[in-house]
Formats: sequence, C-alpha cells, structure tokens
Amino acid sequence: MIMGRVLVNRLVALAAAVAACGAASVAQAEDGYKLWLRYAPLQGEALAHVRGLPRVVYADPDPTVALAGAELARGLADLRGESSRPGVVVTASRLARPLPPNSLSLDCHDPSQPTGGAFAVSPANGGLRVVAAEPVGCLYGAFALLRELSLGRDPATINLAERPAMPLRMLDHWDNPDGKVERGYAGRSIFDWWKLPEHLDERLVDYARADASIGLNGAVVNNVNASPLFLTDRYLPKLKRVADAWRPYGIRLYISVRFSAPHEIGGLATADPLDPAVQAWWKARADALYAAIPDFGGFLVKANSEGEPGPQDYHRSHADGANALARAVGPRGVVIWRAFVYSAEDKTDRAMQAYNEFVPLDGKFDANVIVQVKNGPIDFQPREPFHPLFGAMPHTRLMFEGQITKEYLGQATHLVYLAPYWKEALDADTGRGGTVAQVIAPAGMAGVANTGSDRDWSGSHFNQANWYAFGRLAWNPNLSSEQIAREWAAQTFSRDPAFLAKVVTLMIGSRQAVVNYMTPLGLAHQMATGHHYGPGPWVCDLKRPEWNPCYYAKADKAGIGFDRTAGGSNALAQYAPSVAARWSDPRLMDEDYLLWFHHVPWDFRLRSGSTLWADLVGRYDRGVAQVDQMARMWAGQAAYVDAERFADVSDDLRIQAREARWWRDASIAYWQSLNGLPLPAGTRPPEHPLEYYKSLQFPDAPG
Amino acid sequence: MIMGRVLVNRLVALAAAVAACGAASVAQAEDGYKLWLRYAPLQGEALAHVRGLPRVVYADPDPTVALAGAELARGLADLRGESSRPGVVVTASRLARPLPPNSLSLDCHDPSQPTGGAFAVSPANGGLRVVAAEPVGCLYGAFALLRELSLGRDPATINLAERPAMPLRMLDHWDNPDGKVERGYAGRSIFDWWKLPEHLDERLVDYARADASIGLNGAVVNNVNASPLFLTDRYLPKLKRVADAWRPYGIRLYISVRFSAPHEIGGLATADPLDPAVQAWWKARADALYAAIPDFGGFLVKANSEGEPGPQDYHRSHADGANALARAVGPRGVVIWRAFVYSAEDKTDRAMQAYNEFVPLDGKFDANVIVQVKNGPIDFQPREPFHPLFGAMPHTRLMFEGQITKEYLGQATHLVYLAPYWKEALDADTGRGGTVAQVIAPAGMAGVANTGSDRDWSGSHFNQANWYAFGRLAWNPNLSSEQIAREWAAQTFSRDPAFLAKVVTLMIGSRQAVVNYMTPLGLAHQMATGHHYGPGPWVCDLKRPEWNPCYYAKADKAGIGFDRTAGGSNALAQYAPSVAARWSDPRLMDEDYLLWFHHVPWDFRLRSGSTLWADLVGRYDRGVAQVDQMARMWAGQAAYVDAERFADVSDDLRIQAREARWWRDASIAYWQSLNGLPLPAGTRPPEHPLEYYKSLQFPDAPG
Repeated sequence: MIMGRVLVNRLVALAAAVAACGAASVAQAEDGYKLWLRYAPLQGEALAHVRGLPRVVYADPDPTVALAGAELARGLADLRGESSRPGVVVTASRLARPLPPNSLSLDCHDPSQPTGGAFAVSPANGGLRVVAAEPVGCLYGAFALLRELSLGRDPATINLAERPAMPLRMLDHWDNPDGKVERGYAGRSIFDWWKLPEHLDERLVDYARADASIGLNGAVVNNVNASPLFLTDRYLPKLKRVADAWRPYGIRLYISVRFSAPHEIGGLATADPLDPAVQAWWKARADALYAAIPDFGGFLVKANSEGEPGPQDYHRSHADGANALARAVGPRGVVIWRAFVYSAEDKTDRAMQAYNEFVPLDGKFDANVIVQVKNGPIDFQPREPFHPLFGAMPHTRLMFEGQITKEYLGQATHLVYLAPYWKEALDADTGRGGTVAQVIAPAGMAGVANTGSDRDWSGSHFNQANWYAFGRLAWNPNLSSEQIAREWAAQTFSRDPAFLAKVVTLMIGSRQAVVNYMTPLGLAHQMATGHHYGPGPWVCDLKRPEWNPCYYAKADKAGIGFDRTAGGSNALAQYAPSVAARWSDPRLMDEDYLLWFHHVPWDFRLRSGSTLWADLVGRYDRGVAQVDQMARMWAGQAAYVDAERFADVSDDLRIQAREARWWRDASIAYWQSLNGLPLPAGTRPPEHPLEYYKSLQFPDAPG
Repeated sequence: MIMGRVLVNRLVALAAAVAACGAASVAQAEDGYKLWLRYAPLQGEALAHVRGLPRVVYADPDPTVALAGAELARGLADLRGESSRPGVVVTASRLARPLPPNSLSLDCHDPSQPTGGAFAVSPANGGLRVVAAEPVGCLYGAFALLRELSLGRDPATINLAERPAMPLRMLDHWDNPDGKVERGYAGRSIFDWWKLPEHLDERLVDYARADASIGLNGAVVNNVNASPLFLTDRYLPKLKRVADAWRPYGIRLYISVRFSAPHEIGGLATADPLDPAVQAWWKARADALYAAIPDFGGFLVKANSEGEPGPQDYHRSHADGANALARAVGPRGVVIWRAFVYSAEDKTDRAMQAYNEFVPLDGKFDANVIVQVKNGPIDFQPREPFHPLFGAMPHTRLMFEGQITKEYLGQATHLVYLAPYWKEALDADTGRGGTVAQVIAPAGMAGVANTGSDRDWSGSHFNQANWYAFGRLAWNPNLSSEQIAREWAAQTFSRDPAFLAKVVTLMIGSRQAVVNYMTPLGLAHQMATGHHYGPGPWVCDLKRPEWNPCYYAKADKAGIGFDRTAGGSNALAQYAPSVAARWSDPRLMDEDYLLWFHHVPWDFRLRSGSTLWADLVGRYDRGVAQVDQMARMWAGQAAYVDAERFADVSDDLRIQAREARWWRDASIAYWQSLNGLPLPAGTRPPEHPLEYYKSLQFPDAPG
C-alpha cells in the first residue's frame, strides 16, 4: 500500500503538470504550435454530448496510463470549453475493478485483448471504457476517443476496436548534430544535442505526444548521412535523456549509423563487417546503448549510396553488412537497411539498380533486418510508379519509406497534401500476391520527417497534415485520403461542414496540381541541381548522368520520355508481368505514367486526341489554374480560421501561385527550344525567354 | 475632415490589432518570448497607483504615435491585472489641444522639445503627459513610462526628461541569407528571406517593438561577411517589406555589402572604388534601395579583413573605398566601415594593426562615413583593454562595436551579464580628451545581435539581459550596470526585492567569473579553433600565427604573457601617454590586464604576495567557485520564477558549472605541462590528463 500511495502521488503530480500545461496553451495565439491537438470547444448538440460525459477518469499508476488519463481529462475539459475544470484522474489499483459507474475508465492490462497497441473503446455503465492489453493501447485509445469526440461524434455511438496494421510506424529525422536538417524547411532541428543531456527542450515531449496521438511508435533521431558522433560515449547520455522522455509515449528511439564508424571513431584498421574486431566493436556499442536505453530501437543504415561508406567498400554484400550489425543488436532491436542505392559505375537505368542489387540477396538477411524501400524507384518525385522491390523479396521484411518533408514538392510553401500520393503506392497491386500495403505489413512505414523548430513545426500549417496523414496511414493504410484530410482539417481549423467541404476538396486536388505544374505525364526529376528548388530541365552538364534532369526526360527535337520497355532499359521487366502489361502500351496505359516508361514523339496522339505537346502544355496550364483555384477556395475561409493562420496560408498560396507559373513557363520555354513547336492556339507564352530562367540562381535556398 | 476620419479608422484598427495581440500573449506560458515586455500585474500600493490612472489615452493619427498609444493602453491594463480591459485610445487632431483633464496624453509634435528621440514625461492635469518633438520621441516616452510603472514607481513622482546620448543605436545581425547565423546560438535567423516578400513573420514586428522599447533605432539585417544577394533586385522587395514593418517603430534598415559586388553581380571587370563605372554601379544600387525604402539607413562594410574583398585589392585605401560608397549613398544615409582588420602580411602585433591602418586616414573620410571600432583591439575577448583607436582619430566619427552574442564568453549557455564588460570600455578615459563614450557620442553603438528564432530569442533567458543592456547603454552609457540589471530582472522575472538583491548580485559578478575560469589576468584568445568553444591553449599549429592561442599567451617554461611594452611590440605606445603609463609597470598596474601587456616569469610576485602561478591557479578556482555560487543563488529563487524558465536557467547553470571546471582543468594541465610546477598546496588536480583535453573534438558546435 505504501507503494500504491507513492504511485498515486506521482500520478497526481503528472496530471497536474499536464493540466497546467494545457491551461496555459489553451489561451495561446493560434500560431500552429498545437497541431491537430487543439481540442477546440464543441458547439450545439456535440457540446451537450461531451458535457454529459463524466468528469472522473479512472486510470492506473503506469506512467503511460497516467498520461492517457490526463490527456483524456484535459481534452474533454477543452472540448467542453471548460479548460479550467480539467476533471479528476483517479488511480485505482488493478485489483479495484470493476470500476464505479458513470466514469471514464482506462482498463489497460486486459489479457483478453490483442497486444501491439490495439485498443477498444465503448460506452460502458454510463460512461466510456477504453480497454487494452497494454498501457500504450490505452494511450492510443484515449487519443482515438478524443479524436472522435473532436469530430462531433455522439459518445453513445462510439464503438472502436482497432489495432495497428504494422508493427513499426516511424519517423526518420534527417537532422544533423549541429542542428541543420537536410531537406528540412521548418527551421533548425527539434533536437538540441548541444544542450543535452542537462537541458531537454519541452518541445521534444510535445513531439512525442503528437506522434503518439496518431499512432507513431518510433523515431530515428539523426540523418541517414550519419555523423559517427551518435555512436560516441559523449552522445550516450544525450540519447538516454531523449529516450527517457519519449518512453511514456511509446516512442522508441533509433539512430542512423555510419558504416565506417569502427574505423573512424573506433580506432580499428577496417570496418569490414566480417572482421571479428569490427563485429565486437558494434556489439560493444549496441551493448552500451542498451545499457542506457533498454528499449533502444536499433540502427538505420544508408550504405554504399551517394558516397556513404558500406560493406561494398570491403567487397562484402549489403546482407553481410546488415547482418553484422543485426547480430550486434540481437533480439533487442532491428537493423533497418535502406535499399536506396545507385552507383556511379552501374550504367543501367538508375530506376533499376536497387532491384538489381537487392533481389539476389532475398533470404540472406537475418530475421531482425528490415530493408527499407522508397515508395518509388527514383527518389520521392511528385509522381513515380511504385517501387518494383515491393513483392519481389518474399523472404525479406520490407519497410515503406515515404518523404513527409517536400523536397521535390514545393518544399515549405506549396500546399500539397500527400495522403493521395502515398496511397497511390500503398494501394498498388504488386502482382505478386498483394498490395504494397500488404507486403510491408510485417514491417512498417518510415516517413522522412518535416519537423523543425519553427513555431508551426512543419514550415507551414498545411504541412502538418502530411505528418498527421503519414501516422494515420501507418496505423491503417486503408483509411481514405478524404477521411484523413477531414479529420485533420476539422481538428486543426474548423469543424464547420461548409469549411470542410471546401478545404478537403482543396487538399485532395493539391497533389495532382503540383504534378501538373512540375512534372506532368510521368516526367521526373526536372528540379534544379542541389537544392531541388524550382525548374532545371535544361541541366545536362553534371558529372554523373543520373544527376541531370536531361537524363530523366530524354527530350530532343523528336520526342520526350524515358524508354523503359524492352526496347529501352527494360525496367518494366522488374515488375510482375500483370503490372508490366498495364504500363507496356503507351496507347492504352494510364497516361499519368506515360513518359516514365515510354519515349514518344511530340506529335504522339493521346487518347483524348490531343498531341503529346498540346496535352503537356495543357497540363502545365491546368496546374497553374488549380493553384489559383486553391487560393480562391482558401480566400473564402476567413470566417472559419483565426487571422494569423489564415494569413500564413494565404501568403504561402501567393508564393505557390508565383512559383507554379515559373515552373510552367520555364518548362514550356525549354521544351520549345528543343522541339521548335508553336504553342497550342490560345496559350499564353512564357513570361520570359528561356535564358532568363536558366540564369536564376538560388544560393540561399533552404534545406 | 475626410482624411482625418480615414486616419482615425486606421488608428483604431491598429490599436485593436495591438490589443488583440497583447490579449493573447498575456496568458501565454512563460517561455521567454515576451522578453522584458511582460507587464506583469503590479501588487499592493503600486497596483493601487496604476489603478488610479486614467484609462483613456489621447494620441494622434501618426502610425508611430498610434503604436505608442496602444502600447500604453495595453501595458497599463496588463500592469493593472486587467488585460481584458485595455483602455481606450482616442485620436485627436493636432488642433484639438489642450487635452481633457484626467487623461494620458501623447503630445508628439511639440516644436519646443529637442529632436532626435528626446521626450519628457510628467504628471499633468490628473493624468500623465508624454511630450516630444517627434512621434518616435513619444514612442520612447511611452516605453519609458511603462518601464517606470513596471518597476513600481508612483506615477505622481514620475518626471522624466531624456534624450539619447548618440544618434545611431544599432544591432548588427550576422545572419546569412540561408538562415544560418554566424556566431549565433539561438537557432536560425529571425529573417526568413526565403518567404519574403509574400510572407512577413510576426516575429519581425515583435523584434522591432522590443528594439524600440530600449531605444534602438537601426539594424543591419545581414552578416558583415556579406552575400551579394542583398544588392540584387530579387532582394529589394524583401528588404522593403521588412523596412515597412519596422518604420513605425523607428527602426531603420541597413545592409552589409560585399565590396566586390560590382564585379561579382554587376558584371563589371573590377570593383576598384575609383573606377567611374564602379561608382555608377554603387550609385544605381543605392538609388534603387532608396526608391524602395526612403529611410534606408546605409551600408555596413567589412573590407580587407579575414579574406573579405576590399579597396586594398585595387591598391586603394580604406578611405577610398568608404568614400566611394558614401558618395553613392549621399546625404540619405551613412557608410559604416569596420576597423576590424588584420593582415596575413603584417607581422606586427595583431592588436596594433587596426590603429596602424586607420590613424593615418584620419580626416580623409567623407562626412557620412563612420568607422566602427570594436571595444578592444583583438576580438571580443572576455577582457580586453579599450581599443586604442578611440580618441586617436579626432577628425573621424567613430562608432563602438560590441558583441551581444557571446562568441567567446560561453555562447548560449553560460550566464554572463555584459553591461559591466561594455562599461569597462565605455567608461575608460582615452587620455585624449574624453572617455570612449564621449568619443563615440557623435556616432553611436552597434551590438552584434544575439537574436534567433529560438522561442526565448537569445538562446537563454539571461542572454536577453545583454540585448536589453546594450540598448539601454546606447541610449545612456552613464547608466550603471546595477540599474540596468535591476530594471531588466524586475521586468523579466520578479519585482520582489529579495529576488532582485540576489539576482542583480549574481548578474554583476558573472562577467568576472567567466574571465576567471577562461582567461584570467589579461590572457586572451585561449579558445579552441573555429567554433571558439572550450579551451585550446595548446593550439599552435595553425597557418597564420595570430590564429593560434599560443600567439596570445606566449607561454613557455619560463613565463607567460604578451610583451606589449617598448621592449616588445610596443602596442602600449598606441595609447595616450597617461593611459600607457597606467599599464606600463607590471608591479603597479591593474593586474586584470597584466598578461595582456607583459610577459612575466611564473614566479613573478603579484601585489598580494602570491606568485603569478599560484594566483593564476587561484583565479581559475575562483571562477569555478563563482559559478557554483551563482547556481546556489539561483536555486533559491524558485518561488519567484515560473517553473519553465526557472528550470531552463538551472539547466544552463549545470552546463556552465561543468564547463567552468573543464576550462580550469584543461588550462591548468596545459600550463603545468610547460612550467613543470606543482600545484599550490591544497589545489585540486585536473580531473584528466592533458591529452584528454587535447583529444576533445566538437564538430557539432553551433554558431
């Protein structure tokens, strides 16, 4: 009983702290910091429903359950518009069940429930009951319940029974130890390694809460182009402090490791993965990490890719490299090995190289190795077909890698909602026994985070939707893009149906808009060099062929497109025959992928009857018009959104409108310089001559 | 009258916007964002006093006066603890005076008052009256009045008549266009050039308000190691948007320019300042800037220093270079030319080179050129004697350059209050007809800003005090460090006398503490290479001699210190004879400067009777003990400070305590390796051997 008292006191303190935090934040200006966890007061009938709910939450002394209870008490108070009355969280020992009537109860150790984060929520005994096999299930259940209530659902009708679709639901942070975020457009890193371990920024706790609210359960804290610092003793207490803060939220900490670290910081003569001293070094590092962080997640590795060291430097395979690290980690965690490789020596189509390197290794990876595969075979382009590795390695756990930060999709400012983008890959039938989502279900999904220290976390308010959507899809890839958009917009901005109708439409259409004004008809990688900001289709003088946009468009006077049929690189053959067949005939296929797979003449007739050239120009124009339409739709929402965020979004849309025109004009000017064709009748000519667009330089581009 | 109505409406809108902003911020968590402008509710008698003040503020339609009125109405409401009742701002036409009784009035066009930002505040007719010749004087007066009230002053006793001591009171931002801040330890730049001009972050308005509240009136928005981008057409609308936002707060915008820009971006064959085409190019750029920004401040130039281009590249003098730019600017603004130069070719004492280069040019600079001189002759070291240029160029306007960001003083985390540091220089008698403060009075002061996008603006809560103190000293260098510390701490944390007694003491002692544990007895530049973080006294292998700490300490088995007497570099002779005499005899001088001017044996006897070695070790020990004492003093203040900021400061002090020991131990270990002397009896030996300290690497150091 003494122990019980201590735990109760601890819980009360925790709940009070959370409550105090909430009280302060409720009155904050709407600067976007609160993300989708605003719990704005309900109105009308929905308000009456939550006001009818009990104010007492029964929890237990587990730290995660305590957080769930405090979140529920605080969230309900906010939804009731009574933030100053956050309700009461009562801890009951596990033996004190059944709970009193008319309560909200968290029943978090029910062995009859499934494990792995599953939960059920149902009306019970005048209140509501969240039940789970484990504390983290209750946490997810509490957030799910609050989400339903936030959306205006009548509590009496809430009956949820959910379990996550995959075990690993992660964010990969491409954050360097000095605070710079590679491809980051939201300020500096959220990780201030310099002040750790003494100082832990509260933002890291808020981050874990946000992740948990959408079901994410892991984060790689540093860039895949990895500094060996994260393997040094100096960083151990820093990592431990973060992991300790994240543990109650169910977020496991992973690090990216540099394959050559045994040589570089270990003082060994080699980093050969078959060298026993190298293996012992990795074992010792893993042991040190697990001593500090018992639930340490494991290592993420980018090896022999874009200049990073790897096992091939020692004439070993990716499997040799991955297994050496996996044995150091052992059953305690995983090694996530990226399939994003392409080589200066390999002269085949870049889109084919990952498949060529990895398929022969299928079955050779240890059980705790996961191979992480990008959604498409190139690199997060506005549109790519799904990666041919999905389904092609039946004896290897494959994980999906998406990019939440919009490196190639307008970066911080363009409004592009990515759920339709990811679902295009996740829903794709591999032709080898399932969809991509089914292939990755035994492993998981990792999203390259768009978080930074900007007050709005993600560089813009709408970029938050992509963080949200990635988590929701990792939890359940069968959710529709529309549902996720609606959930997010209602929680983030306004529940008003008129607002949601417009804004969900705006979001859903935004991805096709960016494809249209950047890379229509299956074009890819037309971005300027290095920063990937703005158009650079004319770039053709970089050392390695596949660094050049001209490599991807293969445009000349006669035609445009990359021939990946049997007459060309034959990348099509990497797909299952049923899939390849869908894309093999340029006259019959989905034209959104046309130039990805086919080189066609400028006067090629599309099914609409238009020539390729006329259709291409038309798509650029449509992209520009779509952005203008998005801006008009947003302009009508001033009544539903606070002034600060409304203006922020409006400003971003002004930038996007300007840049969409720039993309269209620069691209058309360049294609015209090749094909010499007149513009289709009635088409606006580019604003400037091609030389102007070529002359633009952006040494100040972020990321 | 129509015009009057429009202006009134505009003012009402402005006041409402400011009020709304204030209302939201009042309830914010105490994360430091509000700086010293918290206007925390008064208590007791002071509360009764402000509650007795009228709620109506009479202003006029000028935008700056409108801001002053709104600030006053909102600030008073906050001080009264009635943020929801911000009072009423009434605009009266200028002819409607005299004003009604029982009001707060802003009388901002009184030709009998002095110009240049002066103001008077006095009780009048049952209320208070702020009077000035210009709107900006009223703004300063409103802030001054609120400061007095915030400190608990009885309004009936407030009688202020102030005018700034110097015309230019500036911050220099060493911010690069990509958002990185050179020597910045508070996150990314506050300037998001990428999203400008479409999007202006509200932080830039809050910044201008904070600057104006302490009397600052200018800011150089980019790094002295200047990107030519700021002179391009692309940046003009960005700069204009910022200048427009700052104008009502009286903040003029300046830019740093790259001397070679006419060649690099202008397409000219040269940047020779005597070339007519170059002169025409600068004139055209200045004209474009003034067309966009009529009150543009001018150019700041770092030339022929640390690799930056300059007129000497064309065999022209600094005066030739400065005058070419000054003629482009003309009477519209100024050219501020930095005297921070030292050359790879010049083999004389680095501390002497600025004087040697600039004194011969005295009288050759145009009237709108200002030469900007650092506080000391090296580079913002924890302690330096004042710069010998002060007083040595009687025909040139000299400006004082201080560094608010703590590049050499513990960077983000160490608590070091810099007012005593700057006053050491400002109060110094040059021996040439006045103090440094008197020498610079016709020009001004520029502080290298410590602002960034961190929520607390400055990397730590106490770093805000240095921003505050720099502004206050530029307004009035005769203010005492204690008064400024007390003002700041009372507004920022708590007015409780017990709190202030401790915290002001802590602040005042903090500068000597850092000198003691880093560079006691006149040592300088003992920091590690590049990042200047941590000790590196052993570094002696860098290409240029003056890049090495060993150059500055000149330590060996026999002794330590830089002989700057006639027997050595004779830098002493650059000072007025009366000043040189004070520092010429190591047995009689202020020992804080001993090793700056003298090389002495390790057994040199100080006036205390101690040997130099024993005293040196004792000073390191004292520095460590002082930090421990600071931490103890802070630990006792939990009752006076909100939990978040209390913990933040406590965490920083833990880092400082660890790093003070590191500085002490590494330094002592190194000196012992040279002199072979035992530690004085009872002294704790360094924790690690010297090799350990030498082995530490910090590739992740910020800034």
